[in-house]
Amino acid sequence: MAWALAHLCTKREVDGAVRSFADKVLILRFGRSSDPGCMQLDELLWKTSQQLRKMASMYLVDVDEVPVYTRYFDISYVPSTVFFFNGQHIKVDYGSPDHTKFVGCFKCKQDLIDLVEVIFRGAMRGKLIVRSPIDPRNLPRYDLLYCDL
Amino acid sequence: MAWALAHLCTKREVDGAVRSFADKVLILRFGRSSDPGCMQLDELLWKTSQQLRKMASMYLVDVDEVPVYTRYFDISYVPSTVFFFNGQHIKVDYGSPDHTKFVGCFKCKQDLIDLVEVIFRGAMRGKLIVRSPIDPRNLPRYDLLYCDL
Repeated sequence: MAWALAHLCTKREVDGAVRSFADKVLILRFGRSSDPGCMQLDELLWKTSQQLRKMASMYLVDVDEVPVYTRYFDISYVPSTVFFFNGQHIKVDYGSPDHTKFVGCFKCKQDLIDLVEVIFRGAMRGKLIVRSPIDPRNLPRYDLLYCDL
Repeated sequence: MAWALAHLCTKREVDGAVRSFADKVLILRFGRSSDPGCMQLDELLWKTSQQLRKMASMYLVDVDEVPVYTRYFDISYVPSTVFFFNGQHIKVDYGSPDHTKFVGCFKCKQDLIDLVEVIFRGAMRGKLIVRSPIDPRNLPRYDLLYCDL
């Protein structure tokens, strides 16, 4: 289902997306379209994109095509999902040491929807970090998802 | 000498500064004007501001006035200095695990000037992370500078 969401293929395209959305959560999925974990997430993103369209826009980013961002966000597992709002990166406290990105796939659509709602509401109130509403039991275990980049 | 550089006193002012400079390094010193380490850095910043004026703009930010940014950048030592370029946070590899900020005071004006030049040139070429040109022996030791926030 990766074809269903648009790709950003260069740093310039990612820069443009980060700057162009006003009052909307920008969701960037960093990964590889051929990776099974990414395919699973891409399908879930696609299935929620209509429901979230007023609050969020989603794009797929290939880690090999934008090494500057891959390195900036220290992405060593795919998929990793990063959130922006009005040009600013939004951190999320998932209860893990890494607040910069969500690593792995969401367990269900509702987890993503809840998270995007929390980010949207927090960012609209000026927050740059929000607390994840996702049940910790639904958070992926990194070691199962490790992909050598 | 803290009075010599402008303060940004609210999150809105910091947001505005981050977004308003085109092709120029934005230097934000997070700290407290009454802190001896910050006073030392503020004087050094002030003394280099004229020399760096074509490449960089500098502002002082009180950690207690913008808790959203203080938390976002995980600032637990003051002063901590953060760099932006065209609205994007620029990371610097200082050879330490933390690439998000420079912690402490620069040993001399030239170290700051060299660093800003490297950030400016790298960012102009699309980099989001650059390697610090500062001699590691000139990097402050955090434990000497610890301030409980």
